[in-house]
Amino acid sequence: MSSMVTHVITGGAGFVAVNLARALLDRGDRVLLIDNLSRGRREFVERLGGTNRVAFGEVDVTDGDALAHVLDVVESGPVEVWHLCANSDIPAGVNDPNVDLKDTFLVTHELLAQMRMRGWKRLHFASTSAVYGDHGLDLLSENTICEPISNYGAMKLASEAAIRAATESFLDRASIFRFPNVVGVPATHGVILDFLHKLRRTPEVLDVLGNGTQRKVYLHVSDLVGAMLWIYDHGPEGWSVHNIGPKDDGVSVREIAELTRDHASPHARLAFGTEGRGWVGDVPRFRYDVSKLATLGWNASMSSNGAVKRAIEEIAVQEGMDMPSQ
Amino acid sequence: MSSMVTHVITGGAGFVAVNLARALLDRGDRVLLIDNLSRGRREFVERLGGTNRVAFGEVDVTDGDALAHVLDVVESGPVEVWHLCANSDIPAGVNDPNVDLKDTFLVTHELLAQMRMRGWKRLHFASTSAVYGDHGLDLLSENTICEPISNYGAMKLASEAAIRAATESFLDRASIFRFPNVVGVPATHGVILDFLHKLRRTPEVLDVLGNGTQRKVYLHVSDLVGAMLWIYDHGPEGWSVHNIGPKDDGVSVREIAELTRDHASPHARLAFGTEGRGWVGDVPRFRYDVSKLATLGWNASMSSNGAVKRAIEEIAVQEGMDMPSQ
Repeated sequence: MSSMVTHVITGGAGFVAVNLARALLDRGDRVLLIDNLSRGRREFVERLGGTNRVAFGEVDVTDGDALAHVLDVVESGPVEVWHLCANSDIPAGVNDPNVDLKDTFLVTHELLAQMRMRGWKRLHFASTSAVYGDHGLDLLSENTICEPISNYGAMKLASEAAIRAATESFLDRASIFRFPNVVGVPATHGVILDFLHKLRRTPEVLDVLGNGTQRKVYLHVSDLVGAMLWIYDHGPEGWSVHNIGPKDDGVSVREIAELTRDHASPHARLAFGTEGRGWVGDVPRFRYDVSKLATLGWNASMSSNGAVKRAIEEIAVQEGMDMPSQ
Repeated sequence: MSSMVTHVITGGAGFVAVNLARALLDRGDRVLLIDNLSRGRREFVERLGGTNRVAFGEVDVTDGDALAHVLDVVESGPVEVWHLCANSDIPAGVNDPNVDLKDTFLVTHELLAQMRMRGWKRLHFASTSAVYGDHGLDLLSENTICEPISNYGAMKLASEAAIRAATESFLDRASIFRFPNVVGVPATHGVILDFLHKLRRTPEVLDVLGNGTQRKVYLHVSDLVGAMLWIYDHGPEGWSVHNIGPKDDGVSVREIAELTRDHASPHARLAFGTEGRGWVGDVPRFRYDVSKLATLGWNASMSSNGAVKRAIEEIAVQEGMDMPSQ
């Protein structure tokens, strides 16, 4: 058994992690999921099934001693670290910079310290389009300079920087994934879940934060996991950065509101705000260059619109709001 | 007196800060110098003279409560914050990432928290060419992507990112200065001081770390302060980034060794190592594009070679090693 790969996944009880874990288990590997359960849920882990190839540790990654204790369970053999945990409430981090300092950056610092100590040399990191900041309608490629406008984006960029320096001193591989907005199930937060909850409370009207013109790129979590594993299998050793997303220019909040309304409460009226941004630090629109990943051989199967449509259907089922078939 | 400008300078007892403070005092302004005296020296502050426009606070900027206590002495009137404190022992930060986490990044985080609380909206930040990492012979402009290879560079980039996000939420002005290597007096560390100390111990031989081919851009501290004040007076509001340096491609370690030897111990033999880099995370060579600052109207008065020559003369005097005139 010692040659079986163990995948250590931070944020392991979260939305992306449990989808990733399922795919890694399907390959026959072992997973150790680590989560402080601030937003991730133990039931998501339990749903992965009773295989002895799944372990779970409830721990805050910024607590070095507790983290070390959990990581000690990893048996000998190759170790791959997937670092997904972060603050996921971006407006909260704008109001209090300590949130992203701790939950988005110091987690990375502590994890790197543990990896260095244990001789673990392979890291796969969930970064974000938010590192770029607001470049208007310019296409964002991996060679675009980073000027984050939220503390979340800033502390993801800080994490990338710390990982880059670690690649110089002890990591053999550091794959940086710059995620767009990701949708799918199990959903714990996000615009679709918000809209569905609002429509359950007030089926006649859907209040939308902002004027609805914000347009963003959305990727379905199944495509995201596909891209991560593609880069894992086919990407270069050493340091690499890849934008991950569909090829299109995204979907507007108005369209998401309409699609959600049409699915869950067809007679609801849409009520928009007046602001072009939902909150300070929000990037109202961006265009993503995903040609580097396409050159590596991977393309998204769903457009932004398609990803949102499928996610609405899935989340409605999750919330018990699925429409009876006609 | 309430309209007199107060300049709060972190790293205030350090090499660059005391040169900056002298220039600001010459303009008739007030300065509050903050330093934990880990490397800065109280005597440097005392040499600024007995004017009542100089205040000094011994405090570690990462200690929020102690910092707040010191900042409470600032009287009403405009406040400009110059953030210069950082770990200056880059190899130490490569060996222990906690050094740059605390002394290069968390200082910025705490300072921003204090500024936000006090409504101070103007920040001038000493960043570094090390944020770029190793781009070989490519010219480094402000539009070059940042891939730092030392923890020092990474935590300076993290600081820039946190400041960028703060510009979105509460700062009116954030001027980022990307320093090259800076030389001059009072010298507390650096290659020239090291060489002079080595020659004092062993006047017949000068041992050089690395093979001497590392070539870097050097700026004299008088030019650096001139550039910072130029940007202060003529730069834009909001967020801006400027490389600061001379127009040339720098000076090699071999040339610095020869110039120092010629000045301080003309008969010494030079002994080189074999490595192209002095230590992990060192950028062996870089070329700096300073055209943005030239467009703003400022150019360095000394070349890299000229800056090093003048600094050798000044540091030799400081160390009591000046040659008698012939």
